Amino acid sequence: MWTPTAVLDLWRLEPVGPDHHRGWGRIGNLPRLFGGQVAAQALAAAGADLPPGWGPISLQAYFVREGRAEEPVEYRVLRVDEAVRRVTARQSDRPILILDARFDADGAVLPSVHGGEPPDPAWRPGDEDGAAFLVEQARRMPFELRFASLPSRIAGLRGEVLDGQRFWFRAAERLPDSLLTHACALTYISDLFLVSVALARHGLPGDRPRAEIQAASLDHAVWFHRPARADDWVCYEQASTTSAGGRGLSTGRLLDLAGAVVATVRQEVLLRT
Amino acid sequence: MWTPTAVLDLWRLEPVGPDHHRGWGRIGNLPRLFGGQVAAQALAAAGADLPPGWGPISLQAYFVREGRAEEPVEYRVLRVDEAVRRVTARQSDRPILILDARFDADGAVLPSVHGGEPPDPAWRPGDEDGAAFLVEQARRMPFELRFASLPSRIAGLRGEVLDGQRFWFRAAERLPDSLLTHACALTYISDLFLVSVALARHGLPGDRPRAEIQAASLDHAVWFHRPARADDWVCYEQASTTSAGGRGLSTGRLLDLAGAVVATVRQEVLLRT
Repeated sequence: MWTPTAVLDLWRLEPVGPDHHRGWGRIGNLPRLFGGQVAAQALAAAGADLPPGWGPISLQAYFVREGRAEEPVEYRVLRVDEAVRRVTARQSDRPILILDARFDADGAVLPSVHGGEPPDPAWRPGDEDGAAFLVEQARRMPFELRFASLPSRIAGLRGEVLDGQRFWFRAAERLPDSLLTHACALTYISDLFLVSVALARHGLPGDRPRAEIQAASLDHAVWFHRPARADDWVCYEQASTTSAGGRGLSTGRLLDLAGAVVATVRQEVLLRT
Repeated sequence: MWTPTAVLDLWRLEPVGPDHHRGWGRIGNLPRLFGGQVAAQALAAAGADLPPGWGPISLQAYFVREGRAEEPVEYRVLRVDEAVRRVTARQSDRPILILDARFDADGAVLPSVHGGEPPDPAWRPGDEDGAAFLVEQARRMPFELRFASLPSRIAGLRGEVLDGQRFWFRAAERLPDSLLTHACALTYISDLFLVSVALARHGLPGDRPRAEIQAASLDHAVWFHRPARADDWVCYEQASTTSAGGRGLSTGRLLDLAGAVVATVRQEVLLRT
């Protein structure tokens, strides 16, 4: 058994064979794996042996089955072409996640022209404390989290309806200057709270009676628009844009301190009574 | 060589073997395949042999290489579990598209609560004509198209900057009551104009000097929120939400005549000088 303590350990992989890697994951005493960690490890596996200067530009994943924290995850990579790779993550030979990712080298580009509204410049991380149990949760992860307003998980517990939420995060330690490393860090955090954002839109709690509400992440997609440092403050805006037929679509934008959108996130969430 | 005329022929597949299908595609005299058609055929392949009452809830695809209209496309399906399937589309043994899709049966669901702003109720298909060459393009497809405002392709040709556009479409003939059929039709149309929307955001033409601008669809994702009929009018709202580093993220919402969001679309577009 292996428990991550440093940020880089979250997606550190053990080489097993050609395009075959092994990873471990755990958050506190949770018996299940955190989806963001499996996605980050799958991205790290897909990006192993990238040519210098290349980085991920997007990933698209489906969660297939809940992962167990006491078991290693086997990642097998299929190279579709030089830029696109498919990964299957398995435990005991059963798929728990499939992920496709696209990589690219730097090239001649158009100027950056737009990325939506920047976050309120008057508001900066540090103005607000996270609620107690979220700070506790953050303590199990090597990231700092700061909420700008009532977190969706607390709103859901109180039965309040929330359109979305915003929080800031940064890695608790300095990270190396690798595009893949920072993309893995953003991927890890990007899976946080998207289920509770979808539930809070219905005024439902994300942490309680699972017998009443079946809630789970179905998929996960991240587009990395600009290089970003996960060891500097990043603002994560989350919202639930649609809910119908027992599923909600949660959406997110990651912005740097200058207000530039560095990544876009989409996750479909199962919401079944 | 086989030229589609009826809507259902657009994603009709020839069985080749277990989880192996073959398709053909063509729009007018274009030498290349239309990405929306390859995605629709891949979805049809993924959904072949679904249990009764099941339908697609989402797809996530990467375009790997331009397809050629004079060659058949081979679709091979991998069943990850009962709900998730992976498809690889190949021509001459080289991948042109990879697509993952998730399916689901009806179940106990939460009430539908939201889906963003409905389209302007004062505006309905039929109020405006599409511009001439778009009507011409639509004539090659068995769909009717109606634009609400200046189409992005024309804006781009004129050098105008456009935030987004909106058009209505419907299949030119009645379709059977199959969830998969209507999802394939929405998938087919969903690939239209997302590149030109991204280019028009920069005031660039989508149809001209390719030597100056390299523009291509990199990926494509569709979430099917509610059952929808593609043979009734559907409103397609398109926008370019972000552009940086030589890539733009185009986004779309499909709405029915009642204003309900029936699907959400995302496509990353390569925009390189």
